[in-house]
Amino acid sequence: MSVIKVAILGFGTVGEGFYRTIQSHAEELTAVLGKKVEVAAILIKNQKKKREISKDVLVTTDFADILNLPQLDVVVEAIVDKDPTYIYLKKAIERGCHIITANKEMFAHYGTELLELAQAHHVSVGYEATVAGGIPVIQTLRQLLNVNRVQQVQGILNGTSNFILTEMREKKLSFAQALRTAQENGFAEADPTNDVEGFDAFYKAMILSRLAFGEEPNWHAVERTGITSITSELIDTADRLGLRFKHIASIKKSVNQLKVSVGPVLVGNEHPLYHVEGVQNAVNIFSDIVGQITLQGPGAGMLPTASAVIEDLVYVCQNRPERQGFTTTSEINSGRQEQGEIEETWLIAGYYNVTNHSVQLIDQVTDGIWIAKAKREEIDALSKLNEELVYFPVIGEYEREHVLAR
Amino acid sequence: MSVIKVAILGFGTVGEGFYRTIQSHAEELTAVLGKKVEVAAILIKNQKKKREISKDVLVTTDFADILNLPQLDVVVEAIVDKDPTYIYLKKAIERGCHIITANKEMFAHYGTELLELAQAHHVSVGYEATVAGGIPVIQTLRQLLNVNRVQQVQGILNGTSNFILTEMREKKLSFAQALRTAQENGFAEADPTNDVEGFDAFYKAMILSRLAFGEEPNWHAVERTGITSITSELIDTADRLGLRFKHIASIKKSVNQLKVSVGPVLVGNEHPLYHVEGVQNAVNIFSDIVGQITLQGPGAGMLPTASAVIEDLVYVCQNRPERQGFTTTSEINSGRQEQGEIEETWLIAGYYNVTNHSVQLIDQVTDGIWIAKAKREEIDALSKLNEELVYFPVIGEYEREHVLAR
Repeated sequence: MSVIKVAILGFGTVGEGFYRTIQSHAEELTAVLGKKVEVAAILIKNQKKKREISKDVLVTTDFADILNLPQLDVVVEAIVDKDPTYIYLKKAIERGCHIITANKEMFAHYGTELLELAQAHHVSVGYEATVAGGIPVIQTLRQLLNVNRVQQVQGILNGTSNFILTEMREKKLSFAQALRTAQENGFAEADPTNDVEGFDAFYKAMILSRLAFGEEPNWHAVERTGITSITSELIDTADRLGLRFKHIASIKKSVNQLKVSVGPVLVGNEHPLYHVEGVQNAVNIFSDIVGQITLQGPGAGMLPTASAVIEDLVYVCQNRPERQGFTTTSEINSGRQEQGEIEETWLIAGYYNVTNHSVQLIDQVTDGIWIAKAKREEIDALSKLNEELVYFPVIGEYEREHVLAR
Repeated sequence: MSVIKVAILGFGTVGEGFYRTIQSHAEELTAVLGKKVEVAAILIKNQKKKREISKDVLVTTDFADILNLPQLDVVVEAIVDKDPTYIYLKKAIERGCHIITANKEMFAHYGTELLELAQAHHVSVGYEATVAGGIPVIQTLRQLLNVNRVQQVQGILNGTSNFILTEMREKKLSFAQALRTAQENGFAEADPTNDVEGFDAFYKAMILSRLAFGEEPNWHAVERTGITSITSELIDTADRLGLRFKHIASIKKSVNQLKVSVGPVLVGNEHPLYHVEGVQNAVNIFSDIVGQITLQGPGAGMLPTASAVIEDLVYVCQNRPERQGFTTTSEINSGRQEQGEIEETWLIAGYYNVTNHSVQLIDQVTDGIWIAKAKREEIDALSKLNEELVYFPVIGEYEREHVLAR
């Protein structure tokens, strides 16, 4: 039986999870692929660290050793940094290897280049593990896009932020306390910036944007906020209104313009993302034929992410490379046309001067906190007049019923 | 450009939705398949009914006319009855056509035969639309099964039942009133037996069982109950306990034995199926690597079901037939081994004789209604002694926390 030779770059949680799963599920893999999968080499950083790796595997700190292997079919990349990782993958593609990556930052930056290069070299690129861990978001979107016109993708893409928001609400913790709990449980890094300031979710949103709409917005024009401005008081207030703060990446296209935002949103309890708690991730896809579907599951963790990488392994080994890549038919996928900006519901805090307001106030929640109906541009204008103002969009049931019912 | 010629059997909601979507999304379909899709013929029952069908399409009441078409590549079946539909599809396969079906009753009965016949004739079978409408359950399971060992599939598979249960709880309606609302909204048939007695969910469970575990249980041994025994009082009681009645099909394999049940279950609010309301469907898949993922969306309706059929159209036209079909490696997919029967949590109603009980009573809810911990066989034994007894398994958070917390 012929053999598929794989190299793993990086032996952290994802790399090791993949290595172990290949061994524990060797029988299934061989059955599906008709070939045995063998890990030929692993690229590491620290030669001295103890690792449980079979003696048959070349363990090296030099990528050149891997590139010089006599047979190499697939390179699985599970490194955190984007450079020089991108160069490694470029060289792997040029050698004729399929590549699989779990590295969202790298893939958000270099995804288009890698996909184009792969196409030129007739190899495939798997990136299921870059977004929402074990949830098959990429594959489901690919499949929906065969015919559906995707209109909007909304997701809870950062498990750390979602865990912190859940802890703050359930256990009445401050942000700092909840962050510490997340760190103690291994759900947050010592430096949590990437997660709590929304960078991680932003990278994932860029990857989803290119897949769903064939393009991505100007990165600098995207509103990206984290969860650090959310206080216990705001969470309490939301709770009393039947709303929950969720850190949501939203990508939609209207009037042929991509709109992407990454930040906290108040979600009503009829919305599928309201119930997604703790480290769970979820993605909500609106498309024209099927309507709204939601996928929920573990967004991180050794095994769920390994599962995504292994699904990619099957995908790259079976895929005909011509058929993959990001959507390029952005006209076709332009979604429903909207007539200008739509009025949305907002929770605004720090709003005292109510005699001279430009937005439609619907309800006063407490001193300085209001529910308003306004277009985004009106809220933006208001916030320029008042730097203390914080505001969050409200989605889900609240906008339809609760306001009137109270 | 070459053409894919399709025949549609049946022009009800699903057939018509598919016909219309093929026209509205012709551009996307051509882009994906590299060929134009043309509906060559439609099989109908009543020649006199008015339909909006192009003059170029052969509309006939005689399946022989369809079989005699000079070119025929795919037969899409959207009929309600299982006979003689099965014979039509058999003949279509024998002629060398791919087949796609949205007919769960037919496919639950004849799926294995059709898949085997298709394999022998090197054609493909699409059946995404038989389970959970527009939610890509079949495709997601197929993909997970590449490597994961699926352990359990739980689903809300009948939108009518879920709608009725939601209405009963939210609007304090009796079963009869909620059924009438469902009928008025087009969510239930004039004769609702198939939905409210659990037959529809049962057929879908059999299809999922064969896909996920490569086999199905003895149909007569499967516990299948509907929702007709659920009273407003029971729903009220559940509500006070923080539980919701959901009609759930559960398929799991332990100690190499398939366990399938279809019936009402009490679900705690931490369980992903708790929040699935109205006509929505959802499927919760437990597998060994990825853990638990949930897919939620529209389980029926003209367009969602049409979307599933069109995804199947892409699938059958691109699939290599050798790779499809039900899982046959049931040993591999046997799941974790369990040591005998496990104790579960139950709500039992109509239980008055508490002095001589064989099950562990945990909590009295009201007169005659108790929460108990017991193995299924113990509950079965108890119910044989008392024919008035009704009982429902409790899943989700309740079994872990609420009992002790009260």
